[in-house]
Amino acid sequence: MTTPTDESPIAMVPGPIEFDPEVLAAMSHSSQSHVAAPFIHTFQETLSLLRQLFFSTNPADQGFVISGSGTLGWDLVAANLIDASLESTKQALVINTGFFSDSFATCLGVYGAKVTNLAPPAVGSYPSLESIESALKQTHYQVVTITHVDTSTGVLQNVQEIASLIHRVSPCSFIIVDGVCSIGVENLQFSDWHIDFALTAPQKAIGAPSGLSIAFASARVLEYVEVTRKSPVPAFYADLKKWSSIMKAMEAGKPAYFATPAVQNIHSLNVALHQIVSAGPGAILDRFTKHAEASNKIKDFVINDLGLQIVALDRDHAANGMTAIYLPEGITNAQLLPAMAAQGVVLAGGIHKEIATKYFRIGHMGVSVVDKSRVDVDYTLKTLKQVIKDLSKN
Amino acid sequence: MTTPTDESPIAMVPGPIEFDPEVLAAMSHSSQSHVAAPFIHTFQETLSLLRQLFFSTNPADQGFVISGSGTLGWDLVAANLIDASLESTKQALVINTGFFSDSFATCLGVYGAKVTNLAPPAVGSYPSLESIESALKQTHYQVVTITHVDTSTGVLQNVQEIASLIHRVSPCSFIIVDGVCSIGVENLQFSDWHIDFALTAPQKAIGAPSGLSIAFASARVLEYVEVTRKSPVPAFYADLKKWSSIMKAMEAGKPAYFATPAVQNIHSLNVALHQIVSAGPGAILDRFTKHAEASNKIKDFVINDLGLQIVALDRDHAANGMTAIYLPEGITNAQLLPAMAAQGVVLAGGIHKEIATKYFRIGHMGVSVVDKSRVDVDYTLKTLKQVIKDLSKN
Repeated sequence: MTTPTDESPIAMVPGPIEFDPEVLAAMSHSSQSHVAAPFIHTFQETLSLLRQLFFSTNPADQGFVISGSGTLGWDLVAANLIDASLESTKQALVINTGFFSDSFATCLGVYGAKVTNLAPPAVGSYPSLESIESALKQTHYQVVTITHVDTSTGVLQNVQEIASLIHRVSPCSFIIVDGVCSIGVENLQFSDWHIDFALTAPQKAIGAPSGLSIAFASARVLEYVEVTRKSPVPAFYADLKKWSSIMKAMEAGKPAYFATPAVQNIHSLNVALHQIVSAGPGAILDRFTKHAEASNKIKDFVINDLGLQIVALDRDHAANGMTAIYLPEGITNAQLLPAMAAQGVVLAGGIHKEIATKYFRIGHMGVSVVDKSRVDVDYTLKTLKQVIKDLSKN
Repeated sequence: MTTPTDESPIAMVPGPIEFDPEVLAAMSHSSQSHVAAPFIHTFQETLSLLRQLFFSTNPADQGFVISGSGTLGWDLVAANLIDASLESTKQALVINTGFFSDSFATCLGVYGAKVTNLAPPAVGSYPSLESIESALKQTHYQVVTITHVDTSTGVLQNVQEIASLIHRVSPCSFIIVDGVCSIGVENLQFSDWHIDFALTAPQKAIGAPSGLSIAFASARVLEYVEVTRKSPVPAFYADLKKWSSIMKAMEAGKPAYFATPAVQNIHSLNVALHQIVSAGPGAILDRFTKHAEASNKIKDFVINDLGLQIVALDRDHAANGMTAIYLPEGITNAQLLPAMAAQGVVLAGGIHKEIATKYFRIGHMGVSVVDKSRVDVDYTLKTLKQVIKDLSKN
């Protein structure tokens, strides 16, 4: 790979990330009818590959691929799993680790949920297991949401531990994982950990272009939306029951129509999923390891070589696919980001309301990490060091 | 262009259509941060080009490009323009011409609208102006919906005439146009005809891959959702007020974030819009003419050479980008569609509930019509004639 330049930069933001050439080429797939056999075959295979990505072992679970964005996943949860017509099904607990947990809480509220927002003790931290257990014992929550990686802070949650706690203390609560910046890079065992609904998007840990809302629902979520729930779902496009019949048909190789799928995006997702899971469960575990190694290298460099502080306060709870970093004293994002872009590295500013102007973010997911022919990570670190040095002189 | 084969077929369905190579190539655009300058420039330009596509002359109107599908456009209308908390803002009139009008009505009902479904006198027909005027005089409708082309029947509505009637009899009603199978192929003058909200998708008359919900809102719709409406919008992802601030910022060249846009899809839409409007208003009018000519040629052939009947009962109210055709006596879609696909032509079956098994559909939009180097239309008609002849022998 050639060195990045301002004319041909690399996207080192926490999504959209750099894409593999084959994934990108699949975006230009020739046109296909969305209900004719060739595309149905691709959709069928894609939904099947999702089972491996999510480590789902129950055939009654179901994957969903819907035109939209990661954000739409929150509506899928809120519109379908919150039934505001009953006291027993309107309570939601949001285990909050940043901006994206806040937004999920807002979305739940829009659909009539009574939301308990369990805030972390500090920005960059996470609510303790004790505080979660205490909350779970006070109220029956219809849904409990965990933001696996909050892209605003880079805080990684221990989903296994929290899900185990919820499963023990409040077994009827639906366990929801926002995996937008995690699934494909961080370990998530849908079946073993008793997850009920996980949502994500292609442009981060999966490594395919944006434009899709990807979700995975447990058998008991499907039973709730298809059978148990009596009140109408207050949404049309985000109605999970409509989509579940489409996804089941498509995965069975039968044409079905509710809304025209994004044919080319699904081809690119198909290629990305093949790359992630094609060599079996070991391949994806190796992918997690590669990301953890790269993340450690980046965080060590930022802390030790650059003398900077990362936003995630606990290294054991720091994301492996991105790093949020406090700016050096006297340097602003208005200086740092254009200076990096001029060297061909696009980074992201801050987004957490309490510290937005004080930090920046680096994404390190997908081919930038696993394709050893790429110089992305080393070039980014080297350039960051030089740019900070140059800016510090002024 | 080479002759289509079953290995390299042409999509002659009413969307997704065949795409221009440059449009398709733009789908593989290298990754970009969705809030960095290069992509913002593309988004800005795309939103500006939409003004020309919709023939909007009021700078206070606003275009929207949201990850999703045409279907999402119905939610945008229903969630934002129907306020079910007030009697005065919950009535909707659906001027029905088929399956897609039915579905729009269903979507409006999901958001609490009291829907008056003005059915056509027969499948393939359309409600008379008199019946629309009579309905408008009985009740104040918050929204009146017109399906410009109902893709299930191929019926084309005279939007100008109907909008003029609504504007005269019920000037406070929002005039909504479902332009999913029309905008880019059929004339729609957003400003001159007093349209308030028009929705579409890229994969039909515009000629870019699916994955986007495209909409255009009048200044008074924006005033309603941003200022007048007092009750909360019962949706998060489909909340127009959230999106309007994003679209205004992006069109002004400023970064804004609500949900990650489909970067590659927007690049392809950008190229498609450039192709449609780049040579000024005359170019798009010429595009309409070319589609009308091709449509007439196809319909004449189907009626006169093949002796078949088209579903749209009135030639003046037949779509120019697609044709719905009753099957010949004794031939089913289970025979016709695979036989055509074996010759490299993918057609669509029926979708209107009353006649679904009795008819099929041909799409004739975009490069298949305007690119004179392509053989798509002639090859489709020739193949259709031969296949029907062969099937009739058995």
